[in-house]
Amino acid sequence: MPPGDTAQDKPAETCVLALSGGVGGAKLALGLDRILPAGALHVLVNTGDDFQHLGLHISPDIDTLLYTLSDRANPEQGWGLAGETWQVMAALEALGGETWFQLGDSDLATHLWRSSQLLAGVDLISVTRELASRMGVHSHVHPMSAQPVRTTVHCAEGDLPFQHYFVRRRCQPRVHGFSFAGLDQAQANPDVMALLAGKELSHIVVCPSNPYVSIDPILKLPGMWQALRDHPAPVILVSPIIQGAAIKGPAAKMMAELQVPVTAAGVARHYADNYPGLVDYFLLDHADATLAQEVEAVGLRPHTARTLMHDIYDKTQLAKTCLALESP
Amino acid sequence: MPPGDTAQDKPAETCVLALSGGVGGAKLALGLDRILPAGALHVLVNTGDDFQHLGLHISPDIDTLLYTLSDRANPEQGWGLAGETWQVMAALEALGGETWFQLGDSDLATHLWRSSQLLAGVDLISVTRELASRMGVHSHVHPMSAQPVRTTVHCAEGDLPFQHYFVRRRCQPRVHGFSFAGLDQAQANPDVMALLAGKELSHIVVCPSNPYVSIDPILKLPGMWQALRDHPAPVILVSPIIQGAAIKGPAAKMMAELQVPVTAAGVARHYADNYPGLVDYFLLDHADATLAQEVEAVGLRPHTARTLMHDIYDKTQLAKTCLALESP
Repeated sequence: MPPGDTAQDKPAETCVLALSGGVGGAKLALGLDRILPAGALHVLVNTGDDFQHLGLHISPDIDTLLYTLSDRANPEQGWGLAGETWQVMAALEALGGETWFQLGDSDLATHLWRSSQLLAGVDLISVTRELASRMGVHSHVHPMSAQPVRTTVHCAEGDLPFQHYFVRRRCQPRVHGFSFAGLDQAQANPDVMALLAGKELSHIVVCPSNPYVSIDPILKLPGMWQALRDHPAPVILVSPIIQGAAIKGPAAKMMAELQVPVTAAGVARHYADNYPGLVDYFLLDHADATLAQEVEAVGLRPHTARTLMHDIYDKTQLAKTCLALESP
Repeated sequence: MPPGDTAQDKPAETCVLALSGGVGGAKLALGLDRILPAGALHVLVNTGDDFQHLGLHISPDIDTLLYTLSDRANPEQGWGLAGETWQVMAALEALGGETWFQLGDSDLATHLWRSSQLLAGVDLISVTRELASRMGVHSHVHPMSAQPVRTTVHCAEGDLPFQHYFVRRRCQPRVHGFSFAGLDQAQANPDVMALLAGKELSHIVVCPSNPYVSIDPILKLPGMWQALRDHPAPVILVSPIIQGAAIKGPAAKMMAELQVPVTAAGVARHYADNYPGLVDYFLLDHADATLAQEVEAVGLRPHTARTLMHDIYDKTQLAKTCLALESP
């Protein structure tokens, strides 16, 4: 990593890989997108949340990235599109159809386009590349795999497909584990594996996404976490837990139910135990500075920073903080 | 047929079967629906126009019947729903997706519901029955078959799938024939075949739909036209051509290109030649009264009436005219 922290200061060949789930991760991905030259950011996105619904293929995390990076995300609800309308859902409700997964009209156009392309035999990686291009996204958005991997949430009341747990049941069921159907048959995105085999990457950033249902599915793809670990670029992980709470989503609730300490240190232990040698820097919020020793105790290198992201300034600042770190 | 021509005068067990394509046929079906007791009308609908588009199963003629009979059809454009919005199409256009087949937002809800049911393994007949019920349609709307039959239009420039000819190319290519893929493997709707095997039907009405692409696909289903011919109820066919023109759609243009006289008598000959003994009454508009002899010459029994339908009064009057006819 050369000195300086703005896009202009970086050599053109520098590029950055970010791993992301949905809303939380997309915030930092947006920060990175905004400070890097066009095309220098690669985002590797969880597709374990993908599902078939109303006959359509829905990729919630990919769409959150596409909508966020094309500046069209809904800033209030944190998902979906700004200025969205809901005519189709209203008509579907009148028909007595399933409306627990709310699909806005413009969002539906994305699903229709993607689904028809997949039906025509185009793979999810190419479809996503084309969608990003049509939406004017300059960063590369990579689905973690072209093959289906589907997250199941093991709950006290039985197993639930991810979206049924997350949206339909609003994360209410008590969780005791996760599984990822199709993981063994899936191939890690070959474009990203090729990137990891080369030397262009200056940094690998694991965005503040849910460890269990956003980042684990990516890292558990055959060969993936080892390829990340073996690349010379530093791997910088931003804690999704600040002061014992998740900024977005069920991470803290899941940790409590899994009887893991609901702290940034609990997150650090998860990565240290499951992916030894992967993480070079574990970013904690200043508010959690007292946990730095615990993070060190599990074998990770703590780095405190402002990790809470409210606005675009926070997002670009945290991105700059990440890219200022060099391989230890 | 007992004397009298209103619903109240008919015995409860009377029922009527109408064959219909889209907009033209739906007008008379609506007239019949309004004068018959709830549940007494069965409409057998062409599905040769059905197609897969944007990953969805679209049944244009069935939907025209459902929307018309539930009083929600768009009265100006003759297809689609009244008060429709177009948010999804606008977003799809912005994505560079296919928008030549315009799908309104509320209409899309129908296609999503139908497609997801079909994907779940429910057959088109049951899906249609359930849709009709959810839309508050009292008449029975029967797809001609649960199996796919797909109309191909043979044009001077090559073969076109029906919707590509009809919507995408706006019926511009010159036509020299038609074929119906899947016809031999398709089974005529068993509910309608059971009705034809029974004695409840008092009248069979062939609505003023396109002979080639709306009624032929129905009649050519294995065993269908013979079952209609053999049933004791009179078969009353209403000419879709009045004074040498089709009220709606490409029937007149097709007849000219097929070098058939573009008159009601030309229509009569098509049915007399292809389905001998099927039609008991051939209804001509008063304006075409001079063609009655030509109709007789091809072997059909002409009956003149006002067949032009502008408003609900015209529709119910024509329906009453049909039901006042008794087996010759």
